[in-house]
Amino acid sequence: MKVIMDLCVVPMGVGVSVSEYVVACHQVLKEAGLKTQLHAYGTNLEGEWDDVMAAVKKCHEKVHGMGAPRITTTIKMGTRVDRLQTMEEKISSVVDKALK
Amino acid sequence: MKVIMDLCVVPMGVGVSVSEYVVACHQVLKEAGLKTQLHAYGTNLEGEWDDVMAAVKKCHEKVHGMGAPRITTTIKMGTRVDRLQTMEEKISSVVDKALK
Amino acid sequence: MKVIMDLCVVPMGVGVSVSEYVVACHQVLKEAGLKTQLHAYGTNLEGEWDDVMAAVKKCHEKVHGMGAPRITTTIKMGTRVDRLQTMEEKISSVVDKALK
Amino acid sequence: MKVIMDLCVVPMGVGVSVSEYVVACHQVLKEAGLKTQLHAYGTNLEGEWDDVMAAVKKCHEKVHGMGAPRITTTIKMGTRVDRLQTMEEKISSVVDKALK
Repeated sequence: MKVIMDLCVVPMGVGVSVSEYVVACHQVLKEAGLKTQLHAYGTNLEGEWDDVMAAVKKCHEKVHGMGAPRITTTIKMGTRVDRLQTMEEKISSVVDKALK
Repeated sequence: MKVIMDLCVVPMGVGVSVSEYVVACHQVLKEAGLKTQLHAYGTNLEGEWDDVMAAVKKCHEKVHGMGAPRITTTIKMGTRVDRLQTMEEKISSVVDKALK
Repeated sequence: MKVIMDLCVVPMGVGVSVSEYVVACHQVLKEAGLKTQLHAYGTNLEGEWDDVMAAVKKCHEKVHGMGAPRITTTIKMGTRVDRLQTMEEKISSVVDKALK
Repeated sequence: MKVIMDLCVVPMGVGVSVSEYVVACHQVLKEAGLKTQLHAYGTNLEGEWDDVMAAVKKCHEKVHGMGAPRITTTIKMGTRVDRLQTMEEKISSVVDKALK
């Protein structure tokens, strides 16, 4: 089962700037071989369910390992069984309709 | 690693009422032996990371198996390594402060 | 337009414990006259769109006023025009089906 | 108060494809004069709190007006009072750290 996910990991108790943790998570996701796209409020990723979930767990382990005592994460994720869909198609289906 | 999660599974392409799918997910979560608390916009659950994530996957499989071609799920989830925390403590820590 | 919302306000840069901010937000929501229900990962509220949104803004203003330099908030919210629905009905429709 | 938001509006009861509704929302956001960035699981936007919230309400009104009986929306949104921040800066602060 493929999943497209929007992942936003927020470390708490580490001060106001969290970009170093975002960088570390992005590194984890890349090392997991997942397709990723950073945006202004999270990272979109795409892959097999188990691979994606294993990477999310590694992000939490990594961020705790860097010293964050607490993490709150927000995820949106979509699966579909009627057809395959990629992150690029989700965007292009909107853009194509907008251009009509 | 323990996780406290707010899970909201939304089947798409099945009409406007989705309560039968919510019931089915709740059943899956109970069968997984997880502590759960239904609320008006999702279900809170608590348990070991792998157990919780396995149950979330089973919810997607169940809802697709019931005929939903597409699912969009929203999750908030928290982990902490400074101390153990339960769903009940999260609520009581707020209530206690409010009563002071 | 009525809205049912799940609101989770997370102050950043204030340390690991945030319950005093949750209490303050809950107070704001109550003073706004909104129906509220605290749960383990947020607060559900219900009311007219403009009233609910005004209260959410006041929560941000309040939490910044208490010293939080940064806030990240996660919201789920639902509107429907086919019929009125309350938070209680959302829960009871699930419970009723589960008991069949 | 400036806000950076990730907005994901999901119409329910309208079938499995929702891209026409996403296009309509994007149009509403553009007409509101907001800075927007479409991504694979939502749209990021940036602006003054009241302008952003007014546009979100118009999205719900528009999508209901197109025939969707029910909408569930997921929002992440951030405010900060320590300094101004834009969507571009959020991304570049991550990229810059990653390149070090």
